[in-house]
Amino acid sequence: MSVHLSPPNPAELFPIAGVRIGVTEAGIRKAKRKDLTVVLIDDGASVAGVFTQNRFCAAPVQLCREHLATGQGIRAMLINTGNANAGTGEDGLRRASSTCQALAGRLGLSKQQVLPFSTGVIMETLPSERIEAGLDAALNDAQPDHWLRAAEAIMTTDTVPKAFGAQVMINMATMLGFMATDACVSPGLMKQLATELAEGSFNRVTVDGDTSTNDSFVVIATNQATHAPITALDSPAGQALKAAMLDVARKLAQAIVRDGEGATKFITLQVEGGKTQAECRQVAYAIAHSPLVKTAFFASDPNLGRILAAVGYAGIADLDQTGIDLYLDEVLVAVKGGRNPAYREEDGQRVMKQAEITVRVSLGRGNAVDTVWTCDLSHDYVTINADYRS
Amino acid sequence: MSVHLSPPNPAELFPIAGVRIGVTEAGIRKAKRKDLTVVLIDDGASVAGVFTQNRFCAAPVQLCREHLATGQGIRAMLINTGNANAGTGEDGLRRASSTCQALAGRLGLSKQQVLPFSTGVIMETLPSERIEAGLDAALNDAQPDHWLRAAEAIMTTDTVPKAFGAQVMINMATMLGFMATDACVSPGLMKQLATELAEGSFNRVTVDGDTSTNDSFVVIATNQATHAPITALDSPAGQALKAAMLDVARKLAQAIVRDGEGATKFITLQVEGGKTQAECRQVAYAIAHSPLVKTAFFASDPNLGRILAAVGYAGIADLDQTGIDLYLDEVLVAVKGGRNPAYREEDGQRVMKQAEITVRVSLGRGNAVDTVWTCDLSHDYVTINADYRS
Repeated sequence: MSVHLSPPNPAELFPIAGVRIGVTEAGIRKAKRKDLTVVLIDDGASVAGVFTQNRFCAAPVQLCREHLATGQGIRAMLINTGNANAGTGEDGLRRASSTCQALAGRLGLSKQQVLPFSTGVIMETLPSERIEAGLDAALNDAQPDHWLRAAEAIMTTDTVPKAFGAQVMINMATMLGFMATDACVSPGLMKQLATELAEGSFNRVTVDGDTSTNDSFVVIATNQATHAPITALDSPAGQALKAAMLDVARKLAQAIVRDGEGATKFITLQVEGGKTQAECRQVAYAIAHSPLVKTAFFASDPNLGRILAAVGYAGIADLDQTGIDLYLDEVLVAVKGGRNPAYREEDGQRVMKQAEITVRVSLGRGNAVDTVWTCDLSHDYVTINADYRS
Repeated sequence: MSVHLSPPNPAELFPIAGVRIGVTEAGIRKAKRKDLTVVLIDDGASVAGVFTQNRFCAAPVQLCREHLATGQGIRAMLINTGNANAGTGEDGLRRASSTCQALAGRLGLSKQQVLPFSTGVIMETLPSERIEAGLDAALNDAQPDHWLRAAEAIMTTDTVPKAFGAQVMINMATMLGFMATDACVSPGLMKQLATELAEGSFNRVTVDGDTSTNDSFVVIATNQATHAPITALDSPAGQALKAAMLDVARKLAQAIVRDGEGATKFITLQVEGGKTQAECRQVAYAIAHSPLVKTAFFASDPNLGRILAAVGYAGIADLDQTGIDLYLDEVLVAVKGGRNPAYREEDGQRVMKQAEITVRVSLGRGNAVDTVWTCDLSHDYVTINADYRS
């Protein structure tokens, strides 16, 4: 099930000059599944990444950080599904490193020029020998127009591949995101660009609050366009690039929520009137993570007090409940912490039945605003996550 | 569904000298339901309460705090189900106060000597006139041996009433807890006693992480026993009293989890080797609140990496994953952050199939320990909370 998610339009998935993608079936966890992807990047590209804040980060995430820190130009990425190579200790690091070396050797690179990514079941040994055995087939498959093919190859619990055009990007429920542009961006800007894109997109969506051990977001600028290099994100060209890329990143981040396990509703949580943007986000996440709120959305039940309760335990110590207003789309539900006398249950019910709902909470204590996107909690969430490994 | 929860044994529910309880059907939300309880307390009792930390606290919680703060002897409690009187603003405060006044008038008390409690749907007007109309019937019903009757009367999503003997106590899924003893406890100790009992019991259980607007825990010492008054909790008599009451409080707190909406598993989360007890509890709660972990328990799926992932995002900034060991009952699953080479999936599977499971995480960075109890996340959780109001 998913909320209004259309399959990617291949016509919108432009090849990016300087990037080729190859996919194969390496039999990592199941037979006859595209589960291994190589991304080949021409020399001269600028690459930056943003990774999970989980202290229990997977071996490939540790290697990505190390390889990027060497400052050697990144020339390839190696992505597998079926096994996350997390909770695998020293052996996991050795195996991930071995796959990087195997690909690097075939391409005449150092292993530090390869970034590894894994997603799937955690705490199981990475079958690195199967990955290495699949490399030649993946390399033979490499073509500039294989973005959709790769988007399909990195699905796990996803029900549809996620890729959008303008700039091209692919990602997953366990949040592996790859975004490429042929724009010319000075290498010093890339980390900031990646961070700001993640901040405005992937860091504002949540399905169930579980932060993966493997979350990774990589931005590639191949520098093959003919314009003058962008040297500041607040320059006109920098602003234009960031706006265009953010638009795509946000669509993709929202696509994760729309395709969240069992999702039947797409919820926009807009918190305003906070003292800081951080406290607005804190409140939005408290609502987004409340199982009681999420089941009420699933049931189309305007049990809106559950939202107010979540606002109350969001952790703002000096929050005054008598300052809080609550809207469901345009319907004013609560005023100054109490039920709006003019609120009629049927108005709330009408909005709750929609597939897309905006919840707006005004904290009444400042001018800061923030927005988070989430989905409901349905029977299918339990079914999918209870059955994921079987 | 529930996990090994036996109905209370009426023979264990001793009357407490100095407390009488009456119950009636006031038609607060549905007809022919016991939904109104009065608790009458003899003069001379010591009473203290611990209340929700939710900033959006319900009107009755606000009044409880006010009434207790006046220092007038508490002589009665008034408890209704069907309506939580939360998110109801000034009108909610007026209505709760009016019900206290109505009961106080019948008993020749001031309204500050009455504590009100409500649980049920939030953001709906409290039908205070129905409560007031039911008071005489409830008072006529008052008897010392009506603890079980009251436990039944305050059920909402509970499937069985919760009351245990030695000291007597009643409670609910939305966590209204009442505990009485005939022991003699100096009034100055009561707040500390209530706080320490809550800390060791109700503050260590979680079903879904949602903190209610109405959570309340009240301890009554009627002072009608003949022993010398207890003046310090660390005296031998004080220690004995606290230990006995904590045992009951913990059973009751665990009963909330065992009867958690849709619960099929009872999970003990023991985190050790932390620098502080607080960080151990933080980790335990991160695991307890993870929907991915909870669905894995429901599925009896030893997808134990999900537990490690939750440990990783619990918010301990300097956590070293290579120090972490994980046990499932006696099965050593992970060592130093990686899979235990001797671990066999069938061993994990065997434990996961049990109805009661202990997860033990060693953080390897200190000597602190803490324990939290929780349950799994099942289809019935979604069903029950999606249908609660209908």
